[in-house]
Amino acid sequence: MKCFDFLLPERGDKPRKTGITMVLDKGLGYETAKSLMEISGEYVDLLKFGWGTIMVQDRDVVKKKIEMYKSFDIIPYTGGTLFEIAYMKNKTQEFFKETKDMGFEAIEISDGSIDIPHEEKLGFITQAKNEGFYVLSEVGKKDIQKDADIDLDERIELIKAEISSGSDKVIIEAREGGKSIGIFDDKGIAKDKEVDSILNNLPSDKIIWEAPNKDQQVYFVLKVGNDVNLGNISSEEIISLETIRRGLRGDTIELLE
Amino acid sequence: MKCFDFLLPERGDKPRKTGITMVLDKGLGYETAKSLMEISGEYVDLLKFGWGTIMVQDRDVVKKKIEMYKSFDIIPYTGGTLFEIAYMKNKTQEFFKETKDMGFEAIEISDGSIDIPHEEKLGFITQAKNEGFYVLSEVGKKDIQKDADIDLDERIELIKAEISSGSDKVIIEAREGGKSIGIFDDKGIAKDKEVDSILNNLPSDKIIWEAPNKDQQVYFVLKVGNDVNLGNISSEEIISLETIRRGLRGDTIELLE
Amino acid sequence: MKCFDFLLPERGDKPRKTGITMVLDKGLGYETAKSLMEISGEYVDLLKFGWGTIMVQDRDVVKKKIEMYKSFDIIPYTGGTLFEIAYMKNKTQEFFKETKDMGFEAIEISDGSIDIPHEEKLGFITQAKNEGFYVLSEVGKKDIQKDADIDLDERIELIKAEISSGSDKVIIEAREGGKSIGIFDDKGIAKDKEVDSILNNLPSDKIIWEAPNKDQQVYFVLKVGNDVNLGNISSEEIISLETIRRGLRGDTIELLE
Repeated sequence: MKCFDFLLPERGDKPRKTGITMVLDKGLGYETAKSLMEISGEYVDLLKFGWGTIMVQDRDVVKKKIEMYKSFDIIPYTGGTLFEIAYMKNKTQEFFKETKDMGFEAIEISDGSIDIPHEEKLGFITQAKNEGFYVLSEVGKKDIQKDADIDLDERIELIKAEISSGSDKVIIEAREGGKSIGIFDDKGIAKDKEVDSILNNLPSDKIIWEAPNKDQQVYFVLKVGNDVNLGNISSEEIISLETIRRGLRGDTIELLE
Repeated sequence: MKCFDFLLPERGDKPRKTGITMVLDKGLGYETAKSLMEISGEYVDLLKFGWGTIMVQDRDVVKKKIEMYKSFDIIPYTGGTLFEIAYMKNKTQEFFKETKDMGFEAIEISDGSIDIPHEEKLGFITQAKNEGFYVLSEVGKKDIQKDADIDLDERIELIKAEISSGSDKVIIEAREGGKSIGIFDDKGIAKDKEVDSILNNLPSDKIIWEAPNKDQQVYFVLKVGNDVNLGNISSEEIISLETIRRGLRGDTIELLE
Repeated sequence: MKCFDFLLPERGDKPRKTGITMVLDKGLGYETAKSLMEISGEYVDLLKFGWGTIMVQDRDVVKKKIEMYKSFDIIPYTGGTLFEIAYMKNKTQEFFKETKDMGFEAIEISDGSIDIPHEEKLGFITQAKNEGFYVLSEVGKKDIQKDADIDLDERIELIKAEISSGSDKVIIEAREGGKSIGIFDDKGIAKDKEVDSILNNLPSDKIIWEAPNKDQQVYFVLKVGNDVNLGNISSEEIISLETIRRGLRGDTIELLE
């Protein structure tokens, strides 16, 4: 039950197919994360343990965090860089096994930091899907120069192929910073025409836009609607994003009209 | 009792009439907020539940947070956007009632996101005052362009009228970001002449300056004195601001001389 | 024990002589800090209570935090500004006594905010060393203009003299912001030639580089190696920095090759 509920616009409950919020955990303490989920867990659909961060945290604490997130009907998953490291070290099968052993039911397959032939990447997506994982894959490079070398048509083709191979959602890379990568310019402003192209050529419900900064979240909610899928949300901005989606913050109050 | 107290300059205790710190809660977990108040609650006079954030949090947790803040002699209050939404939906009277039912003793009346005839806004300020609330009102627009359309003389007249109508404190809008709004330019630097004009024409103890960034806090403490009222302080900066007020950080160490 | 440990590159354990991480506590709640150390304390070597922040927190809570940090084999210490305030007030001997009474075993001697003749500063470094403290000293000014007046050769001579006088580590000032101070330009980018000069003229293991921003941390790890000593790390970035040191984040993944 909510206070001031006579003023509260509705939004779909979990499990959601659209309007998904993916949050970044880059090393929250267990108690802090739990306290935060008690107040905002109902708005978190996917929880990414960023890049290799779980490898340097205590295994038991990570397990406890995974179980805690699941108890709030959140799907926790491993950041793409962890998969890429396994690929580099020729340990992808050990990686899949450990992912299951840790209790993960979702996984991200990406090639943001290293080069993987796309056919091979698609193979891993299919394998993950066949093994029963909810599969996220990511398109884009973490290096600004390398990312700029992917033109828009190519980006769209890559996304299509990953969906066909089994990706439940494809993430449009923007990193934790949200600048100079993918559809964002060096000030973090979205390139509107590129976004249009992606939206015109792909099913919107299959895309998760990384949008770490508030103005980016406002942009997507106003452009695509409050059921847009957004990712790399900082743990401190979960509640704020939910108010943006519902028109409860000045920036999107026009949604109430 | 404090450590190194032989080096600690004094500052007035609560309830304070000046030197007020207003902190922004935009969705803190209960335990996290409590842990923070245990270490810094004595420096928090007013606690704003930002914009519509409490509407998307569990009602019972919000109630617990309100009671917890009160137990530290902090006045929690509802962000102005919540009032504005009630106004839009023609539910201001339900809004006043729910505010009381939730245990709030303070309220913010603003028109930052929507247009309200000023006479009508003044009426709500008076009503809130008559109903026994501690009343904060806010002057300024959240939209950069609309805010720029309010010239300085007009801003001063608006503030004067709101004080006359019953506002205990008038807040000078700067949002969470502190840029391009009110007395701040697009880099977040205060326009010194405009601040002077406001100070010369209005009672300083009635004004709360939103000053979310450290350099802005330093500016006001050095310009106005450590008893300046400051608002939109991030929960992580409460202790830092108190050291700035007392000359215990490099930026204001000259206050110790 | 760690998950995915078959992918985890090793790094030295505490007590570390190099590869030190110094974290900034600017007013964390006790429970929040404890929760954070449970997940990341093994990567924190030194914990600085920033500037005068402990003076405005409850003495008993500060004592509890000191003991808690020590229980994780972390060395907590007092920020340099606290010493400088004691110097201004002619209370350095009371300062040393209170530092011990509070349970601190390390101390920072600096002159970032006030002027202290260097011979006198060296005397305090030697006194602190003789009294059994682990001694950190800092070179650089918190004021941008004053800091710019120290040329590189002078900076190197100051550091050498402080090491000779007993400093266990000398900190290169960059403040919490990391811009326009010391070896960083106004965008926070390191001046490579100045860093080279310092590295060529001084023992790297004696230097702690303040590097509050991620790009600065990446720069130093790639330039100096993962055993570089880094300081002013935000409490939220401890895990991230550890992944940067080990090549587990995209920015430094080349370290794994």
